[in-house]
Amino acid sequence: MEEEVVSEENVTPVDEAEGADQEVEVTEEDARLAEIAELNNRLLRVQADYDNFRRRSREEKEAAAKYRSQNVIEALLPVIDNFERALLVKPEAEEAKSLLQGMEMVYRQFQDTLKSEGVEVIETVGQPFDPHLHQAVMQVEEEGFESNQIVEELQKGYKLKDRVLRPSMVKVNA
Amino acid sequence: MEEEVVSEENVTPVDEAEGADQEVEVTEEDARLAEIAELNNRLLRVQADYDNFRRRSREEKEAAAKYRSQNVIEALLPVIDNFERALLVKPEAEEAKSLLQGMEMVYRQFQDTLKSEGVEVIETVGQPFDPHLHQAVMQVEEEGFESNQIVEELQKGYKLKDRVLRPSMVKVNA
Repeated sequence: MEEEVVSEENVTPVDEAEGADQEVEVTEEDARLAEIAELNNRLLRVQADYDNFRRRSREEKEAAAKYRSQNVIEALLPVIDNFERALLVKPEAEEAKSLLQGMEMVYRQFQDTLKSEGVEVIETVGQPFDPHLHQAVMQVEEEGFESNQIVEELQKGYKLKDRVLRPSMVKVNA
Repeated sequence: MEEEVVSEENVTPVDEAEGADQEVEVTEEDARLAEIAELNNRLLRVQADYDNFRRRSREEKEAAAKYRSQNVIEALLPVIDNFERALLVKPEAEEAKSLLQGMEMVYRQFQDTLKSEGVEVIETVGQPFDPHLHQAVMQVEEEGFESNQIVEELQKGYKLKDRVLRPSMVKVNA
């Protein structure tokens, strides 16, 4: 980068016309150099924007992939709730018992499939109450439990990886 | 960035040096112009790459959102299959009948939830065989069906929006 710029002061004007000519050349040269600097700046800026966009884009993609099942799983939570309620029966008839057994297997397969997608049931009874994971529906005074410890679960809560889909509804010891 | 470098050639000698000086300036001028052209080219290329990346990125994002439930739904298909098999019983006892009824409601809710996520059962019996949607497990000769028409469904097939998750297994009329 050997830039050789003619400085006016170094050339004693021979006559006025030549000086003027010299000045025009200097101005053009300056304009070129300014243009080069400006282009280099713009190039750096665009390149930096592009790099930032690529990075953000990759991060967004990863986050989207991590939680992509969230919508459908949230929509399935009421199905799981009803499935569990339907399994609460205690049948007497052999026919009903074997039907129930079959349904329990389907339920376990359902739960296992969701687990393998990153769904976890939030732990409750015996755990300390955590407002990020649990919703206290009732306060009770129960012996054998510490203060702020969960006494009973009223509705299951679920997490998808590190994200809470629905907090557990619980009874907490006062 | 005003660099003022004194060029030796610009300060006397007046005769020979001036011709040489002129040539040097032209060469420098050419180099500057080439540099400007090159920078403009690079700027255009980077800008075009950036624009392409942005477009592709947006398209990928849309496709990813459209089919984001695909993995979990594919994983749930065997659960649905088993659910359906468990519902095939024809119980006699009242207890078993009411249990079955409850389970049928859970099953319908399950199917409705998947439907609202864009899942469709592929139509079969009576439809013309389509290798993109159906897998022919058997060829039969059945009266009352046209050639290449589906006679029976052996396993349900599913689509997510316009994407086939699993083709139906069918019997086709020869």
